[in-house]
Amino acid sequence: MDKLHLVKIGGNIIEQPVVLSSFLRDFADLKGPKILVHGGGKEATEFAKKLNIPVEMIDGRRITDQTNLELITMVYAGKLNKSIVAQLQAFSCNALGLSGTDANAYQSKKRAIGEIDYGFVGDLQLVNTAFFMELLSQNIIPICCAVSHDGQGQLLNINADSVASGIAQALASRYDVTLSYCFEKKGVLENIEDELSVIPQINYEKYQELKAKGIIAQGMLPKLQNCFEALDQGVKEIRIGGPELLSKRSFYTKIHK
Amino acid sequence: MDKLHLVKIGGNIIEQPVVLSSFLRDFADLKGPKILVHGGGKEATEFAKKLNIPVEMIDGRRITDQTNLELITMVYAGKLNKSIVAQLQAFSCNALGLSGTDANAYQSKKRAIGEIDYGFVGDLQLVNTAFFMELLSQNIIPICCAVSHDGQGQLLNINADSVASGIAQALASRYDVTLSYCFEKKGVLENIEDELSVIPQINYEKYQELKAKGIIAQGMLPKLQNCFEALDQGVKEIRIGGPELLSKRSFYTKIHK
Repeated sequence: MDKLHLVKIGGNIIEQPVVLSSFLRDFADLKGPKILVHGGGKEATEFAKKLNIPVEMIDGRRITDQTNLELITMVYAGKLNKSIVAQLQAFSCNALGLSGTDANAYQSKKRAIGEIDYGFVGDLQLVNTAFFMELLSQNIIPICCAVSHDGQGQLLNINADSVASGIAQALASRYDVTLSYCFEKKGVLENIEDELSVIPQINYEKYQELKAKGIIAQGMLPKLQNCFEALDQGVKEIRIGGPELLSKRSFYTKIHK
Repeated sequence: MDKLHLVKIGGNIIEQPVVLSSFLRDFADLKGPKILVHGGGKEATEFAKKLNIPVEMIDGRRITDQTNLELITMVYAGKLNKSIVAQLQAFSCNALGLSGTDANAYQSKKRAIGEIDYGFVGDLQLVNTAFFMELLSQNIIPICCAVSHDGQGQLLNINADSVASGIAQALASRYDVTLSYCFEKKGVLENIEDELSVIPQINYEKYQELKAKGIIAQGMLPKLQNCFEALDQGVKEIRIGGPELLSKRSFYTKIHK
């Protein structure tokens, strides 16, 4: 099977032009089929401030009313996505920006109202595998943002980590998928105060141990949970690291079964 | 040759949800290959007001500084494009939103600074014909917004009428192209005060005559100039009409040689 690199970058990287540009050059240099998924939550939050739009987060998830949904669509699918695509085009990478509604690339289901009403937030339901494979076969590189739709005309805010993991899983039977999460740290840290205390490898047993010790907590919990689900669904390798993860010199945390 | 419908809608239609929805249903119902190009200047201008961003227009063209470029990218490529695509998907039309930078669909050149510095405004230079034909062959319907790029990483604001006309011309040797401009009037009017005074047909001679009489003026001048250029480049038929232009009952102005 061909190798496929599926890379996710977070908002902290995107908002720093120099770091982003260096990351995008590394991404452009990756050989073979590849897909980029990007977040952008921080930028959306800052933009909301400018517009005096209240932002409410619960457990790191944005409560998404109509106004916040429009804002997110503008920032993620508009400003960030097109800026990333334009930069990649300049690096001779034939990038194509996507939201989940474009060619129904990734469809989601509005989250049911339970104790919390998240508003226009969706959970990934369906990945258009054939469409992604068709693009990749033409050397067109999909650049996916965290906006999806329900197939009934409603756009939905969706978690970028889940989009990356979901696409990786959907393509795992067609490619040897390496899923890389690039964020502001150099990996999963043993000691959150020490930037260099990167844990080189985590398997499921070690994950349980680190969780019990409280070393893995908060935002890292769902991220790692996602990783083990993806491994169960056939994704070959998962890496968590910094913006320089795609360059050969970098170290990172490898997640494996 | 196969027929191809290339349709452009203006900002006045987009900002009225009921009119837009009805238009999009008609568009979804069109048989065969089709492409939609949309503007959205009014929405961008309103959004600029909310953010206290100054907007300067000269001859209907927006002076586009960095802030206005970001705004336009957010509104055109984000909010409007994705909302249109999501609605079309709900109408079972497999729409795919594009800016010019996506897969290098339409590249442009930053306008040289002459008497006026338009800022980040581009003029269409290159249409990726192969990419459009590939999408259409897969029944994927391109939805194009008025954001392009220069291939060097710079996004550029571009006139939506020119994008529509440019794509129509680029595809004219491959398809029998009908280019339809849908805007707020029912066609080119003999008397601007009388909504029903639609001129049924205009050829180049009649255009000169109407121009001399001052019946065609302002925004309609570059629009018609574009039309005659497109006819010269092989576009089969051009129609100018209202938001109901695609429905069978509508009347409109036909532009021909």
